[in-house]
Amino acid sequence: MTTIPRDQWYVAAYSTEITHDLFSRTICGEPILFWRTRRGEVTAVPDRCVHRRFPLSQAPSRLVDDQVVCGYHGFTYGTDGKCVSVPGQSRIPRTARLLPYPLAEQDSFVWVFIGDPAKADTSRIPRAPYLDSPDYTAVRGMEPLKARYSLLVDNLLDLSHETYLHGGYIGTPEVAATPTTTEVDEDAGIVYVSRHMDDAECPPFYAKSTGLEGRIARWQDIEYTPPCLYKLHSRIATVGSVPNPDGSDPDAFHVEVVYAITPETEHSTHDFWSVARDFALGDGAVSKFLAENNCTVVLQDVEALDVLEQVILHEPEGYQELSVNIDTGGLAARRMLQRMAAPQQTRTARA
Amino acid sequence: MTTIPRDQWYVAAYSTEITHDLFSRTICGEPILFWRTRRGEVTAVPDRCVHRRFPLSQAPSRLVDDQVVCGYHGFTYGTDGKCVSVPGQSRIPRTARLLPYPLAEQDSFVWVFIGDPAKADTSRIPRAPYLDSPDYTAVRGMEPLKARYSLLVDNLLDLSHETYLHGGYIGTPEVAATPTTTEVDEDAGIVYVSRHMDDAECPPFYAKSTGLEGRIARWQDIEYTPPCLYKLHSRIATVGSVPNPDGSDPDAFHVEVVYAITPETEHSTHDFWSVARDFALGDGAVSKFLAENNCTVVLQDVEALDVLEQVILHEPEGYQELSVNIDTGGLAARRMLQRMAAPQQTRTARA
Amino acid sequence: MTTIPRDQWYVAAYSTEITHDLFSRTICGEPILFWRTRRGEVTAVPDRCVHRRFPLSQAPSRLVDDQVVCGYHGFTYGTDGKCVSVPGQSRIPRTARLLPYPLAEQDSFVWVFIGDPAKADTSRIPRAPYLDSPDYTAVRGMEPLKARYSLLVDNLLDLSHETYLHGGYIGTPEVAATPTTTEVDEDAGIVYVSRHMDDAECPPFYAKSTGLEGRIARWQDIEYTPPCLYKLHSRIATVGSVPNPDGSDPDAFHVEVVYAITPETEHSTHDFWSVARDFALGDGAVSKFLAENNCTVVLQDVEALDVLEQVILHEPEGYQELSVNIDTGGLAARRMLQRMAAPQQTRTARA
Repeated sequence: MTTIPRDQWYVAAYSTEITHDLFSRTICGEPILFWRTRRGEVTAVPDRCVHRRFPLSQAPSRLVDDQVVCGYHGFTYGTDGKCVSVPGQSRIPRTARLLPYPLAEQDSFVWVFIGDPAKADTSRIPRAPYLDSPDYTAVRGMEPLKARYSLLVDNLLDLSHETYLHGGYIGTPEVAATPTTTEVDEDAGIVYVSRHMDDAECPPFYAKSTGLEGRIARWQDIEYTPPCLYKLHSRIATVGSVPNPDGSDPDAFHVEVVYAITPETEHSTHDFWSVARDFALGDGAVSKFLAENNCTVVLQDVEALDVLEQVILHEPEGYQELSVNIDTGGLAARRMLQRMAAPQQTRTARA
Repeated sequence: MTTIPRDQWYVAAYSTEITHDLFSRTICGEPILFWRTRRGEVTAVPDRCVHRRFPLSQAPSRLVDDQVVCGYHGFTYGTDGKCVSVPGQSRIPRTARLLPYPLAEQDSFVWVFIGDPAKADTSRIPRAPYLDSPDYTAVRGMEPLKARYSLLVDNLLDLSHETYLHGGYIGTPEVAATPTTTEVDEDAGIVYVSRHMDDAECPPFYAKSTGLEGRIARWQDIEYTPPCLYKLHSRIATVGSVPNPDGSDPDAFHVEVVYAITPETEHSTHDFWSVARDFALGDGAVSKFLAENNCTVVLQDVEALDVLEQVILHEPEGYQELSVNIDTGGLAARRMLQRMAAPQQTRTARA
Repeated sequence: MTTIPRDQWYVAAYSTEITHDLFSRTICGEPILFWRTRRGEVTAVPDRCVHRRFPLSQAPSRLVDDQVVCGYHGFTYGTDGKCVSVPGQSRIPRTARLLPYPLAEQDSFVWVFIGDPAKADTSRIPRAPYLDSPDYTAVRGMEPLKARYSLLVDNLLDLSHETYLHGGYIGTPEVAATPTTTEVDEDAGIVYVSRHMDDAECPPFYAKSTGLEGRIARWQDIEYTPPCLYKLHSRIATVGSVPNPDGSDPDAFHVEVVYAITPETEHSTHDFWSVARDFALGDGAVSKFLAENNCTVVLQDVEALDVLEQVILHEPEGYQELSVNIDTGGLAARRMLQRMAAPQQTRTARA
């Protein structure tokens, strides 16, 4: 049985990835065809001709104006997914139609709704406004992960691994050593995990980008909205500095590290990562450094999680892992994901 | 359950492929060892020593005169499959025997019977005499297909795909636009599909080989004898030209495009293709052009069908495709193949 | 159901392979982490952190003094497998422990016990003292086999294959032609297979290493202690030479060919091979020749058995092989292995 929640919004791509060209990506096991119309709207339909399943993204399939022509027998579809041309006959069968996916463009992302389109409510899409705001400068990327998405959720909810897996980049001894607090907002569907280090070593990632020297105050405030959007609000400042009572915080550097965790299949994941900062806004050198450094960190995670996926696939049935305090946030996230992946059972249990 | 019909003749190889040397090919999931004896007869036995399964085609197995010696322990077999030597003992066990496959050489092909040898009737092998006739010149090849054989049957029974997948080679707009007629001869076990284009663009494949200029009459008459032999009788002539009342047709060019569709496994196929023509008989340049051009066309199909195989393997259970008029011949062929693949059930259902 | 006997000792490595460094090898499907402590003792624990399964052999996991630190979250273990440090908390959970494997170092090998540690009795480990004796010079190696271990057992119990698969190296016509005798000691759990060739061609393997010219007496005395240890006592002498009545045998050359047959998984095997001789003890050229020649022979087996594994995986269900006299030893070994792999059923059947 699937462990991937359905009837949910997922990040399918960065807005910049979708142009007036055929673009295919598999989301939650469903191959989806995207393209941007002449008018600038994103369209998404199953990437599979209704006739003989040929992928509409596969050459010689092609986009002609705002219609996609199947490269096998020429079935032609409009932006609404309706077939407008069939070879050898003028009548178009009523069922010759690709069911469009609900879509939304927001905060630099193209979101797609996987599940019953009638349940697609764009107001439920979580926000990450700093990714597309003039007050921030953002860098971004996407790495393919050959591991189930839940391994990336585990990874990101417990940042104590920075000390070991990302030492020399974003990890210092204080991360693993400092306890965290976890809060779960069941109504909003959000898991919060916080770790405030008031006197910590400054890792190269923040030293080189902020210019700070010596020890720092480093706050990590995680806000995860299952299944897809993970935000790490990172606050970096000189030791002793705190935000003003009114919430303003002019002496600190703020970095918003955002991950969109999108299952490709049961055993692979699209690992979208963005780093937005509220300082050195126009500084290309800082952007280049943060992009390269975070990409390295993501690839360290990818290497480790790809290994873990293989470990799980070959481990004896019924193997039990051991959880400790640092896993509180991750376990809360798992519980929410399990409920999302089995809505039917949950409903019955509540009745 | 298998979808491959048994108790059927399949093309195993071109006659020219089988020499006085060990040759192995898997047909319908059965690895078969072929060699031509000193007297010139083709022999076929399972490619697996009765002792410990070592492939008799695998070095250091070797042919010594007309006997094959297993490279693992030296079990030795004659052309009738009987073991004639066993290491360490003089007695040969009665069951030390490889059961030979029924074979026939005809029309440039080596045919092998897969199933119960008692049912092998060579008179049931369909003919393609132009492949081995002085009145024709033929070119040929074989491409491995990583797709189930039924995808190639679908492909060849509906040539409207020439317009899209083979545009610039054998496809022109008229192929997809012209309706076809389909006839099924249940007694003879043949599906006929015809498309007569009386005023059509001439694709490079025919323009360069025939020397015709301008528009043409182009007739496609398919004759498919499931499971293995597919013939496309192609007639190319100037617009308005028709055969004489007596059937003679001296003003037209005739090309016989023959495919032998042989399952290798449930998910792979040997795609044998031949192109025989009744003009420019001794012209090497025409032969070279037709061989290269048809090979390109076959590889376009191979690429598309390999993709389709993967699509099918990953599609949700119960997925339904949509069929239209152009599929009439293909659907008829599928029905015949299904009956062939399940003879037992069919018999019961009829009783 | 597994075909691999549990509650058994297996060779995990050569002693020289295990140093003060993390070393991982999968034995009988279990990934195991080995390292040698500062005091020189070998340690073995599951290669999987109790927390989130990260392989402890995988960088950036590392050995710090005699403790291993997990590269994911820093869980730290002592040589007894007990966790001594957990990130973010001072309390160590009672169950945070890797269960050490019973081990023994003997005759150049590191033996590991797979199964219930309470049943590990080092006195049951079979011996091969010549591999680590001043009276012999030994060469050795290990080749990975992509085939089930039982195929290597079959191979080694029936040396008639030397004539065919290893012709020009260790095979001559007499090996396949000379009958063998088989004895089974059920109490000791040993299968003996003997072939005494009193007047045989001398293969290059023995001609070049001993310097003997012309025909030889060549005795092959196999002693297999399932599941893991196989010894071939090979006696090479001039024709007519026999051991003295008191068992001394000064005129013969003795070569002890030892294989440790360790399942890696159900479908792959560690093929450890050693060749010990009681002549030319300090002669580096002879050592080099025997090492290279035996490695070539092992790789010939590996190639053949890798093919056989694939043949078995694709053969029809219920396929029956044919056994003859040469298989007597191999069949006896199979029966012993089957009983070992199903001790529970055997016990019930006996009750």
